[in-house]
Amino acid sequence: MNGAQALLRTLVDSGVDVCFTNPGTSEMHFVAALDAVPEMRGVLTLFEGVATGAADGYARMADKPAATLLHLGPGLGNGLANLHNARKGKTGIVNIVGDHATYHKKYDAQLESDIETVARNVSTWIRRSSSSADVASDAAEAVANARMGQVATLILPADASWSEGASPAEPITRAKTLEYRKPYPLPDDAVLFLGGRALREPYLSAAARTGKRLLAETFPTRLQRGAGIPAVERLAYLAEFAAMQLEGITHLVLVDAKSPVSFFAYPGKPSDLVPEGCEVSTLDPDLLDQLADPSVEVQVQPSARPDRPTGALTAETVAAAVGALLPEGAIVSDEANTAGLYAPGATAGCPPHDWLCLTGGAIGQGLPVAVGAAVACPDRKVIALQADGSAMYTIQSLWTMAREGLDVVVVLYNNRAYDILNLELGRVGASGERAKEMFDLSTPALDFVALANGMGVPASRATTADEFTIALEKALGEQGPTVIEAVIPGM
Amino acid sequence: MNGAQALLRTLVDSGVDVCFTNPGTSEMHFVAALDAVPEMRGVLTLFEGVATGAADGYARMADKPAATLLHLGPGLGNGLANLHNARKGKTGIVNIVGDHATYHKKYDAQLESDIETVARNVSTWIRRSSSSADVASDAAEAVANARMGQVATLILPADASWSEGASPAEPITRAKTLEYRKPYPLPDDAVLFLGGRALREPYLSAAARTGKRLLAETFPTRLQRGAGIPAVERLAYLAEFAAMQLEGITHLVLVDAKSPVSFFAYPGKPSDLVPEGCEVSTLDPDLLDQLADPSVEVQVQPSARPDRPTGALTAETVAAAVGALLPEGAIVSDEANTAGLYAPGATAGCPPHDWLCLTGGAIGQGLPVAVGAAVACPDRKVIALQADGSAMYTIQSLWTMAREGLDVVVVLYNNRAYDILNLELGRVGASGERAKEMFDLSTPALDFVALANGMGVPASRATTADEFTIALEKALGEQGPTVIEAVIPGM
Repeated sequence: MNGAQALLRTLVDSGVDVCFTNPGTSEMHFVAALDAVPEMRGVLTLFEGVATGAADGYARMADKPAATLLHLGPGLGNGLANLHNARKGKTGIVNIVGDHATYHKKYDAQLESDIETVARNVSTWIRRSSSSADVASDAAEAVANARMGQVATLILPADASWSEGASPAEPITRAKTLEYRKPYPLPDDAVLFLGGRALREPYLSAAARTGKRLLAETFPTRLQRGAGIPAVERLAYLAEFAAMQLEGITHLVLVDAKSPVSFFAYPGKPSDLVPEGCEVSTLDPDLLDQLADPSVEVQVQPSARPDRPTGALTAETVAAAVGALLPEGAIVSDEANTAGLYAPGATAGCPPHDWLCLTGGAIGQGLPVAVGAAVACPDRKVIALQADGSAMYTIQSLWTMAREGLDVVVVLYNNRAYDILNLELGRVGASGERAKEMFDLSTPALDFVALANGMGVPASRATTADEFTIALEKALGEQGPTVIEAVIPGM
Repeated sequence: MNGAQALLRTLVDSGVDVCFTNPGTSEMHFVAALDAVPEMRGVLTLFEGVATGAADGYARMADKPAATLLHLGPGLGNGLANLHNARKGKTGIVNIVGDHATYHKKYDAQLESDIETVARNVSTWIRRSSSSADVASDAAEAVANARMGQVATLILPADASWSEGASPAEPITRAKTLEYRKPYPLPDDAVLFLGGRALREPYLSAAARTGKRLLAETFPTRLQRGAGIPAVERLAYLAEFAAMQLEGITHLVLVDAKSPVSFFAYPGKPSDLVPEGCEVSTLDPDLLDQLADPSVEVQVQPSARPDRPTGALTAETVAAAVGALLPEGAIVSDEANTAGLYAPGATAGCPPHDWLCLTGGAIGQGLPVAVGAAVACPDRKVIALQADGSAMYTIQSLWTMAREGLDVVVVLYNNRAYDILNLELGRVGASGERAKEMFDLSTPALDFVALANGMGVPASRATTADEFTIALEKALGEQGPTVIEAVIPGM
């Protein structure tokens, strides 16, 4: 058995049976080992940013990591932005990064680079297998670390992959080390700021039963929501609005969440959003249960849907249509940015669903996350709410949706601008005509119907609310990927 | 004057007047400064890999660096693969990477990352401006380093950009430190292995006048070639063929080139391609002149073109059509990989032109390099010979071609496979049906006409040699970007 075969067998035995791949010559034996280990599903992507983002989306929904297969340092580099997002969202991923054979490194061939340095920024765990005999145990370690919500990067020299003398390693199970703190009676003025695990059941209901006001972090990794589920108010992206939400709070309890700070700095405005004098403490989600009061009646989200919209197609009517039609169990990958402002409100009372956000601010995550979520949950409908500018970072995702027949409806908000930058230009105290040209995507306008068709995905364009609603209803009634381009005005 | 304005003014004063941009909120004042410094041309791209590859292509043709504007660590990460290529090709680039305001760093906001670590792999020079007063002098240093063929990365905190109190810095001129070695009479058995500058005039003719056999590195940054120019045989990509070319050589003189090694390692095959017992020495290109013998008659490439092809469209007939029609002064960006095997031969006797290769092996360079070359040389025709698999890494390049009206003809070889990996699979001693699925791009087939149209670029599809030749002739006769999808069989 060669190193690659032992690696794949170990991954599968450890529960990692999906690998999002972008292989090259140095990963050839890993690819060949797919024939020896048929339990491993290889999902080909056309760009590494798709592979890493898909692994993120997969883990968010499968509650276990996927692997990626990346081609040396440049391949890892291409995947870096979505690994940054995974790190910020605490989603576990096992990266397998192929490298030159050990003895080939010294020749500084064209693809030679310092892979460890590229990996360092995003990986909590990095290891380079030194020989085929080590690959399997290294892989078991990588999986154990990824299961703790870490990006684990295993560098696999080609000769460690192709050499014989390897055997599979036992899976490693590791208990999560929790920072338990003694539960305290929550102070009367406590407001719970929920993030991470705390935005899913059973934590969400336990938090609601504390009777305290609940706030959620701005961009949750995975938020369970909808009719019958405790409603949590998400902190706004814009610091001005967030400050209003936080105003008057005197004790903020962080539950698997970071203390709120503004996304960017703005001249003369504070970065720290915690009101002056407000006490901040932390609480492990696993202690919520002990603080819950069974007599508290949980305030759950009432069932409600907006009416089917008519008239002009705008960010607001797109949201209304999504709210009118969102099916139970849907998974929403939300990278709609400015255009998506109305979507959470319009869907709050829909049947229970999951909402996946842009966790690290590096755009180009929405479509890959939709790919991964659809691979993880083939029986659930995935809806990607996707802004035009961000879509173009990893537009290659559409091809993998078509190739794998993934059940994803992409709602492509096309306002023909980096509209969030138009918004931010004034907020940072700057202006200028030539500057605004840098945020304009209208010359030429992107035609997402053509782009989708070019990658084998059926698509349509909607320019009125009725057209959009009919197209969405049709797409939700069918299997397989679809793109609906919603042409909407900018800000 | 704020830091951003002083920065742009300094860049322009130092001769850097093109910036390929992917801005975000942290770079907003840089963008706003475009209005204050109208000499700076901002070229918007939809993905950072396009921006960095375009800067590379620009510098290869303009013989001076361009700047890029990238959004924090993830933006730099997205640009990393083409910065790797630039580093390997010794092309200078000035990266401006925006970062959070200095006082915002400690809050670990979502886009916070260790930018220096991301930059280290590709940048010879890295600096973080500490205040607006430093930005201009840091920029002058960055340009001076980029002019030496280095990737220089300047990290620009938002507050250093927006704060007042800055003033432009004087350009820094720095003489290139050459490693002069005493010229020696070239030994009788010397073969010159040319790379870098040595593949351009006046070095090329001087090398030819030594009367020695000339070989060129496999993937030149910029090779001047065509009728009337000394012909240089390029070393083959496949080690087996390269070994045949090098067989019997007893003294190899490296002229701005690295000693030849195989691109990848293969089980049981040597990495070092220098024949056993062959002496290897180095020579600075600036000394070639002293070793040239004016009495030697330079063997130049005779003028010749293939006939216009007819019949089936194949990699060979595509090459023949390009050879039949390539205009004088054309710039060829070659990332055709396996499909492009015949193109250098078919164009060798065409009127003088430049040939730009994939310098670092990180695919996704061809289209961005074409963008940059077209910006640098608006009066010359750029022809991108582009393989399908690689094209998809930075397909967003097409939009920038349309937006800027760049005069680029993209020949898109669509063999519906990562055919080089089909080739390599056997060569590394591996096989397997599931493995081969990982190299197949036919389910679904990519439709590059639709993709090009989706980004505003006119396109056509050719399936016969006649169709292709007619389409190419038409495209060469017009201004502006075009894509011709050449549907060819795989290997």
